[in-house]
Amino acid sequence: MPAAAPLQLFAYWRTSATFRVRVALHLKGLAATERFIDVDAGEHRSEAYLRINPLGAVPALVEGGQPPLTQSLAILEFLEELKPEPALLPRDLHGRARVRSLAGMLASDTHPLVTPRVRKYLSTNAGFDDAAVRAWMRHWFSTGLAAVEQRLGTEKATGRFCHGDAPTLADVALVPQVANGRRFKVDLAAFPNIVRIDAECAKLAAFQKAAPENQPDAEK
Amino acid sequence: MPAAAPLQLFAYWRTSATFRVRVALHLKGLAATERFIDVDAGEHRSEAYLRINPLGAVPALVEGGQPPLTQSLAILEFLEELKPEPALLPRDLHGRARVRSLAGMLASDTHPLVTPRVRKYLSTNAGFDDAAVRAWMRHWFSTGLAAVEQRLGTEKATGRFCHGDAPTLADVALVPQVANGRRFKVDLAAFPNIVRIDAECAKLAAFQKAAPENQPDAEK
Repeated sequence: MPAAAPLQLFAYWRTSATFRVRVALHLKGLAATERFIDVDAGEHRSEAYLRINPLGAVPALVEGGQPPLTQSLAILEFLEELKPEPALLPRDLHGRARVRSLAGMLASDTHPLVTPRVRKYLSTNAGFDDAAVRAWMRHWFSTGLAAVEQRLGTEKATGRFCHGDAPTLADVALVPQVANGRRFKVDLAAFPNIVRIDAECAKLAAFQKAAPENQPDAEK
Repeated sequence: MPAAAPLQLFAYWRTSATFRVRVALHLKGLAATERFIDVDAGEHRSEAYLRINPLGAVPALVEGGQPPLTQSLAILEFLEELKPEPALLPRDLHGRARVRSLAGMLASDTHPLVTPRVRKYLSTNAGFDDAAVRAWMRHWFSTGLAAVEQRLGTEKATGRFCHGDAPTLADVALVPQVANGRRFKVDLAAFPNIVRIDAECAKLAAFQKAAPENQPDAEK
């Protein structure tokens, strides 16, 4: 294991990508100093932050004198290699692929469609009113969660958590999407496995401490 | 290394996610039997294919009697673990994170916004005409490629390829997005590093053999 260099996390309380990274840090017992980027105030588009991440997305993780790390899934893999225990990927080849695939369905194939920059394009450039934006959000949340639910409900590897009986990167990706879905009033009744696993995760201190509403920069 | 089980790839010539997986298979000298799923004809939404991938996306990779693997980045990591040489991730922790981050900017933060299912939603549910769909496509291609270009142009780790002088998962993610961008007439003049690296990749047989126009199911 490399010597522990101080970690700095550019974060915003409400973003689900930051939520993912926070959960992994807590599960692994890694400490990071947080620097808050007020996305609602547009700080992620400031010249200073665009030097950290040219895509303007939070989070970004900076370790010691290294260049900033961006993209939450890449950061999660980095944390897994930096501190392998407790493992957030299974030991076996096919289990690892399954966990990464589930995480990808949520973080790559659902989340990018429901980010603030997309909502902004739809309302500013495409004339979407609030109802049309909400319909867009609910459509993609439901599409992604329905596909994940089908896998969780039919694949033998599902356990107390998405994969077996310990949390993995799939759970780390799932819980923030569920939280976000609730915020946009997505009906979760059709997703019993997701609701059950989300509740299991909510029992763990790492998920509680990482939740948006428990962050110091959270809206009152 | 595990015993080599036969690989079957559910593929479509034009999808950039399939293109990625094909490049990696060729770079690693792995053979996969292809099963063509005609996305233009809606075959990815058939009941039979939804049993392979409930999200209806291609590609999916099936190894022996294992459950199907989906999500191209998860498949790429699987191939890297199945056959570690030639390596498509650097050896060092920070290099690996950089490559995964670049790949994520393309495969997770750009590609999901420009897929057929999104175009279909915009034209069917949101009244986008052809010009509005093209503007949407060009906006997200340009946003993603501009951020990648900035990193490639300013970070010391960039070499002949995105990371050093051998192809990595970052190049595997880049080339299909560039091909897709060209198809939608994205102006690439502002992205000299991307154009240069794309041309380097085009010299390699693995990228040539994987290119959409060279597939047996390609449009004449």
